[in-house]
Amino acid sequence: MSSENSIRLAVVPGDGIGPEVTAEALKVLEAVAPVTVEQTRYDLGAERYLATGEVLPDSVLEEIRGHDAILLGAVGGKPGDPNLPPGILERGLLLRLRFELDHYVNLRPSRTYPGVTTPLADHVTGGREIDFVVVREGTEGPYTGNGGALRVGTPAEIATEVSVNTAYGVERVVRDAFGRAQRRERKLLTLVHKTNVLVNAGAVWWRLTQQVAQEFPEVTVDYMHVDAAMIFLATDPTRFDVIVTDNLFGDIVTDLAAAITGGIGLAASGNVNPDRTSPSMFEPVHGSAPDIAGQGVADPTAAILSAGLLLDHLGHADAAAALEAAVLADLAERDPATKRSTTAVGDAVAARLA
Amino acid sequence: MSSENSIRLAVVPGDGIGPEVTAEALKVLEAVAPVTVEQTRYDLGAERYLATGEVLPDSVLEEIRGHDAILLGAVGGKPGDPNLPPGILERGLLLRLRFELDHYVNLRPSRTYPGVTTPLADHVTGGREIDFVVVREGTEGPYTGNGGALRVGTPAEIATEVSVNTAYGVERVVRDAFGRAQRRERKLLTLVHKTNVLVNAGAVWWRLTQQVAQEFPEVTVDYMHVDAAMIFLATDPTRFDVIVTDNLFGDIVTDLAAAITGGIGLAASGNVNPDRTSPSMFEPVHGSAPDIAGQGVADPTAAILSAGLLLDHLGHADAAAALEAAVLADLAERDPATKRSTTAVGDAVAARLA
Ligand SMILES: CC(C)[C@H](C(=O)O)[C@@H](O)C(=O)O
Ligand SMILES: CC(C)[C@H](C(=O)O)[C@@H](O)C(=O)O
Repeated sequence: MSSENSIRLAVVPGDGIGPEVTAEALKVLEAVAPVTVEQTRYDLGAERYLATGEVLPDSVLEEIRGHDAILLGAVGGKPGDPNLPPGILERGLLLRLRFELDHYVNLRPSRTYPGVTTPLADHVTGGREIDFVVVREGTEGPYTGNGGALRVGTPAEIATEVSVNTAYGVERVVRDAFGRAQRRERKLLTLVHKTNVLVNAGAVWWRLTQQVAQEFPEVTVDYMHVDAAMIFLATDPTRFDVIVTDNLFGDIVTDLAAAITGGIGLAASGNVNPDRTSPSMFEPVHGSAPDIAGQGVADPTAAILSAGLLLDHLGHADAAAALEAAVLADLAERDPATKRSTTAVGDAVAARLA
Repeated sequence: MSSENSIRLAVVPGDGIGPEVTAEALKVLEAVAPVTVEQTRYDLGAERYLATGEVLPDSVLEEIRGHDAILLGAVGGKPGDPNLPPGILERGLLLRLRFELDHYVNLRPSRTYPGVTTPLADHVTGGREIDFVVVREGTEGPYTGNGGALRVGTPAEIATEVSVNTAYGVERVVRDAFGRAQRRERKLLTLVHKTNVLVNAGAVWWRLTQQVAQEFPEVTVDYMHVDAAMIFLATDPTRFDVIVTDNLFGDIVTDLAAAITGGIGLAASGNVNPDRTSPSMFEPVHGSAPDIAGQGVADPTAAILSAGLLLDHLGHADAAAALEAAVLADLAERDPATKRSTTAVGDAVAARLA
C-alpha cells in the first residue's frame, strides 16, 4: 500500500501536549524524508469528544486505513474531568486503532544517550550503554476488554478482567521479536512473563518461545518473571537486548525502561503491523500531560524519535538513521541548565538535517 | 487464638536459601521476643515434593492453622528441573497458604537504610529517605487460578487468565491501607491500578477507595496508573507513603520498590490476616535462590526483618521496634567491602538484642 515517491501520513495530534510535540516531529520528518510527506490531519481526542460525543467515527477509521502510516501525539483529557469517562479516549481511540489496525508489535526501544542524566547511579551500568528494545504484544492480553461486572456499585459487586492469549497472537509477536534479536549484535531474547502464577497464559508464551527458537539457532533465549525483570531493570539493565512480553507487562516494563534511560520525554514507540496489511502508528510513550500543555515546554524528542521509527518501518532506513544521529547530536550538546522550548528543540534537530 | 506468654510458631524453612535465612531469623526472634517462642517445623517444599509428590497435605494445613503465626523462608526448586512442573510449589504451597489462611493484606515496607547502597543516583532522592509501605491485596486478582485453556499445544490454542475483584475483597484491603496511612506521619495513600484499561476492576478499586476515604478525612488520596508508578518509583520515590494495589500490580511494584531501596536481600513481607481468624505468615520477598544455596552467603536481613513484622502483628510492638533498630545499626556498620556469612549477620543482629 505504500507508494515509492511519497508517504501518505495520517496525523492525529490529539490532546494536551500532543499537538505541540507532533508539530516538531513533522518538522523533522519533512526535513529528513527522502520522499514527499502528504499529511492528512485528523482532529480526534478530548476536544472533539467533549464537543460532539465522537471518539473515532467508523468513517474516519476507514479514511485512516488508506494511509501509509499514522503519527499520533498523545490522547487523554484532564484527569478527573466529569465529562470524560475515565479511559474513554484511550480505549476508544488509541486502543481501538491498535486493535482495528492489528498493531500486534508494539515496539519500544530504550537506550541511554550521551549527555542525558538518568536516575541510575553510575555503579549500576559501570559506564556501559543501555540499549534494548521491548517487543510488547499489542492486540491481546488483558487489553481486549473481555471483562465484566455484576451487581455494580453494591457490596456484592464482582468485576473481572480476562487476559486473552492465543497461539496465533503469541506466535507472531514472538517470531517478530526473534527476527529483531537475530538482526542485532548480541542476539539475546528475554521472555518476560509470570509463568509461575499465570499458568495458562504462561504456558502458551513459554511453548511458542521454545518452538520459534528452533528457527533462530543463533539467538540465545532467556526467561524472567516480570517481578524479577523489575529488579534487573533497576540494577542490571545493560543485560537486556530484546525483551518480548505481553500487552500489560509490556506497558509496565516500557515505562520503567523509559524512566531508567532518561525519561519519558525521550521514549519513542511504534504500533506496528509487520505484515503491512494496515498502516502502522507511531507515537511517543508519554501521555498528553495536560498540566504543561500550551506552554511550549514539552520535550518533543520522543515524538521526533517516533517519526524515525516510522521512516524505518516504511523502508527509509538511511533517513531513519540520520534522524536518530541528529537527535543524538542534539542531546549530547544540550545544556541541562537551559530549558529549551518545544519549538527550539524541533528547530535544532531539523537544522542538523537540512 | 494467641496466648499471652508464648508465640506458637509454625516454621516453614522451604527450599534453597530458605532454611539458612530462616535459621538466622529465628535466632534473632528468640533473642528479642518478650515471650517464649514454641516452634513447630514443617518440611514443605521441593525436596518433599520430589520425594513424595506432596506439596501441602490437608492435614499439615490444619496443623498449621493451630499456630499464632508462620515464618516462611522461601519455596521454589531449581529452575528447569523436569520433575518440578513450573510454579507447582509457588501455587500449591505459598499461594495456597495465602488463600486458605485468607491473607488479604500482603504488607511490604520499603525504606532506605543508612549505609546501604541503592541503584538510584543521589539527585533522585536529594538526600531524603525513601519510606513507604505497599499494601498488596493477597487473595484476589489474577492470582485466583480462574483461567483456562482450549486446544492446548495446537496452533488454535487459546488461554485465559481471569482477574477476580470483589467489592468484599477490595473494600477490606483498602480499609486496612487507609488505617495504616492514618497511623503514619504523612497520611498519604496512593491507589495504583490501571483504571483506563482494566475498567471493570478499576471501577471497583476506584469507587471503594473514594468510599472508604470518607472514614479517613485526614488521609490524602492520590491515584496513579501502574505504568506511571514505575516512573515515579524510579525518579521520585520519596513521594510515596502508603500504596494500595491489587495482587499482580503489587507483586511487580514491590520488587521494584525492593530494588530501589537496596535490594531484595532487605525486603521483608507479611501475609497478614488483620482479623486474626487465622495465622499470618511472614517471609522475605526474595526467592529460594538455588544458585547460592548451601554456601552460607545469603543475606538473612529480609528474613530477620520479616520476623520483626511478625512481632508487630502479634502485638509486640516494642520488640519489633528493637529488632528493626538492631538491623539498622548493623546495616549502618556494614563494610561493603567485606562479605559476611549468613550466620555472621544473624549473630551480629542477635548480639545487639541480647
Ligand atoms: C494510554 C494507555 C491506554 C496506553 C497503554 O496502556 O497501552 C499507554 O500507557 C501506553 O503505554 O501506550
Ligand atoms: C513466588 C510467587 C508466587 C510470589 C508471588 O507472585 O506472589 C512472589 O513473587 C512474591 O512476590 O511473593
